[in-house]
Amino acid sequence: MSMNAMKRLGGQTFQLTNRPCILGWGSAVGKKEGEGPLKDTFGQIFQDSRAGQKTWEEGECIFQQTAVQLALERAKLKPEQLGGIFGGDLLNQRVSTSGSLKNFRVPFFGLYGACSTMAESLGLAALLCDGGYTDFCAAVTSSHFCTSERQFRTPLEYGGQRTPTAQWTATAAGSVIVGQTGSALRVTHLTAGRIVDRGITDVNSMGAAMAPAAVATLTAHFRDTGRSPGDYDLIVTGDLGRLGKRLVLKFMKENGYDLRENYDDCGVMLFDAESQDVHCGGSGCGCSAAVLCGALLSRLQKGELHRLLFCGTGALHSTLSLQQGKSIPGICHAVAIEQQKEETC
Amino acid sequence: MSMNAMKRLGGQTFQLTNRPCILGWGSAVGKKEGEGPLKDTFGQIFQDSRAGQKTWEEGECIFQQTAVQLALERAKLKPEQLGGIFGGDLLNQRVSTSGSLKNFRVPFFGLYGACSTMAESLGLAALLCDGGYTDFCAAVTSSHFCTSERQFRTPLEYGGQRTPTAQWTATAAGSVIVGQTGSALRVTHLTAGRIVDRGITDVNSMGAAMAPAAVATLTAHFRDTGRSPGDYDLIVTGDLGRLGKRLVLKFMKENGYDLRENYDDCGVMLFDAESQDVHCGGSGCGCSAAVLCGALLSRLQKGELHRLLFCGTGALHSTLSLQQGKSIPGICHAVAIEQQKEETC
Repeated sequence: MSMNAMKRLGGQTFQLTNRPCILGWGSAVGKKEGEGPLKDTFGQIFQDSRAGQKTWEEGECIFQQTAVQLALERAKLKPEQLGGIFGGDLLNQRVSTSGSLKNFRVPFFGLYGACSTMAESLGLAALLCDGGYTDFCAAVTSSHFCTSERQFRTPLEYGGQRTPTAQWTATAAGSVIVGQTGSALRVTHLTAGRIVDRGITDVNSMGAAMAPAAVATLTAHFRDTGRSPGDYDLIVTGDLGRLGKRLVLKFMKENGYDLRENYDDCGVMLFDAESQDVHCGGSGCGCSAAVLCGALLSRLQKGELHRLLFCGTGALHSTLSLQQGKSIPGICHAVAIEQQKEETC
Repeated sequence: MSMNAMKRLGGQTFQLTNRPCILGWGSAVGKKEGEGPLKDTFGQIFQDSRAGQKTWEEGECIFQQTAVQLALERAKLKPEQLGGIFGGDLLNQRVSTSGSLKNFRVPFFGLYGACSTMAESLGLAALLCDGGYTDFCAAVTSSHFCTSERQFRTPLEYGGQRTPTAQWTATAAGSVIVGQTGSALRVTHLTAGRIVDRGITDVNSMGAAMAPAAVATLTAHFRDTGRSPGDYDLIVTGDLGRLGKRLVLKFMKENGYDLRENYDDCGVMLFDAESQDVHCGGSGCGCSAAVLCGALLSRLQKGELHRLLFCGTGALHSTLSLQQGKSIPGICHAVAIEQQKEETC
């Protein structure tokens, strides 16, 4: 098998033959996220949703900068050592990312993948390291409840009633630093998603809009790699919420894959269903970013998990596309990460 | 020198040691663009800005799909042969790209780089091929005057007066197909931009906001590669317009580089200054995309140009960031393309 054939396993999966390492990670979340079940796993919890700034948007920049700084500290790196940073958020023209990264002075690749952005950015950062283009590369993603509500739904002051299938946009950011060597946490595969649109038009049912994309990418990943769900200690999507999670279990079973033993969703994990009144769970690209850069990578480092399949799921609509009667296309990118014995690093 | 050192030349430049090939390109533009000086170079000119659709946004999708289809035809490829497609546009949550690409069913990486997106998408597609991750990869970018005016400025029906430094968002799309072998047009370098913010807050003076980023990336490119402006037959930015072009010439001269002989700007090239009433020139990420995928790649193929430095320049603001008093950060990514003798391909 040629090197190229090894690197592209099938229709959608890239195999990272040099197995780039995750050297650092950091997360910053808001008060509500800091009161949830994962509260002990975050790098920093801000009690103030503006993080001391004048606007929520400026606050979101601080969350994102904090996540990058914590990741750099853990990796023992300075910004100028990064060959690139891939980043994005949910805002129009993803201004939070531009605002937060302009002070780092690192070559910047701006992404928009909605809630799939953490997986998209991590996957591309890992490819750049794997290909030998840079020693170190970063990924960062954020979302913010208040900036998102203002942009996508109604002003907070309006006090709009939420439907039972609605999700709660996380005020959170996560960042990962990837390098060519230096740690036991390895990125092994990226399964890049195709756009899947099943005609869902209800913006309060994002889990249903994105679940078909998650099912398509998971199925492609297993097909391309020859792996089965049992090869992973944990498979997570983010962020489908409770409804989307049920749909993934159901549709994957129809496709011949039983995920009941080892599948969860970052939107379900982030908040407590009983006490935190978030209806179907968390959402926003900061949700899966903070769950990955809080709980999940720590569990991999501690050896509580050995193989993780991290699937970022995004809904690719805008307020205008919905007003024009368009359905909500979904996308899902999956990144496989494993904890490897130190001697091979 | 190790392979890695060869691949990362300096702070911001990646050298594509396998010199991936440009196999196909396509462009689609609107009526006004089709009446300009480059009218004979475009793949398709639509007289109807909606391209037969109900909305301008749906029309933009058709422009983008047409560009991809023309590029695939020229490359003699089918969509399913693409290992990935990098794409973006100017709209909120870049819905034109999601809408246009969902029918192609290709692994999709969504970008937002404002008017730098054609260079960002082409650079990343070339890296993926250069690294051996896929045999074929595509890049696509679009903008649309009517969708942009509605989103960023005022409703068209309002008939707002344009200031002298304003630019005209191009109704245009361009797409490039990159492969590992098969043509004489080679992508040799990507200089990835950093965010540069010089405090410009006038949204009608985008050239001034973006010119410092172009200067920073051009300077980094010459420093990293050891090349000088004279090594290129043509250096183009896109889209700074007439004011931004003057600023680049001035600031580059201060940095010790004389660009007077071989520098132009896609926003200046696209429209006729005398007859088309576009004030400072064209803008929008479709402008540089269509100029690249119309005139420039054809001139390279014909041997009229041998080395081109294509610099996409983007302004990373939103209407909200301006309302909140924020300045306009700029970014510029540069891609070096050369025409090489056939025997080495």
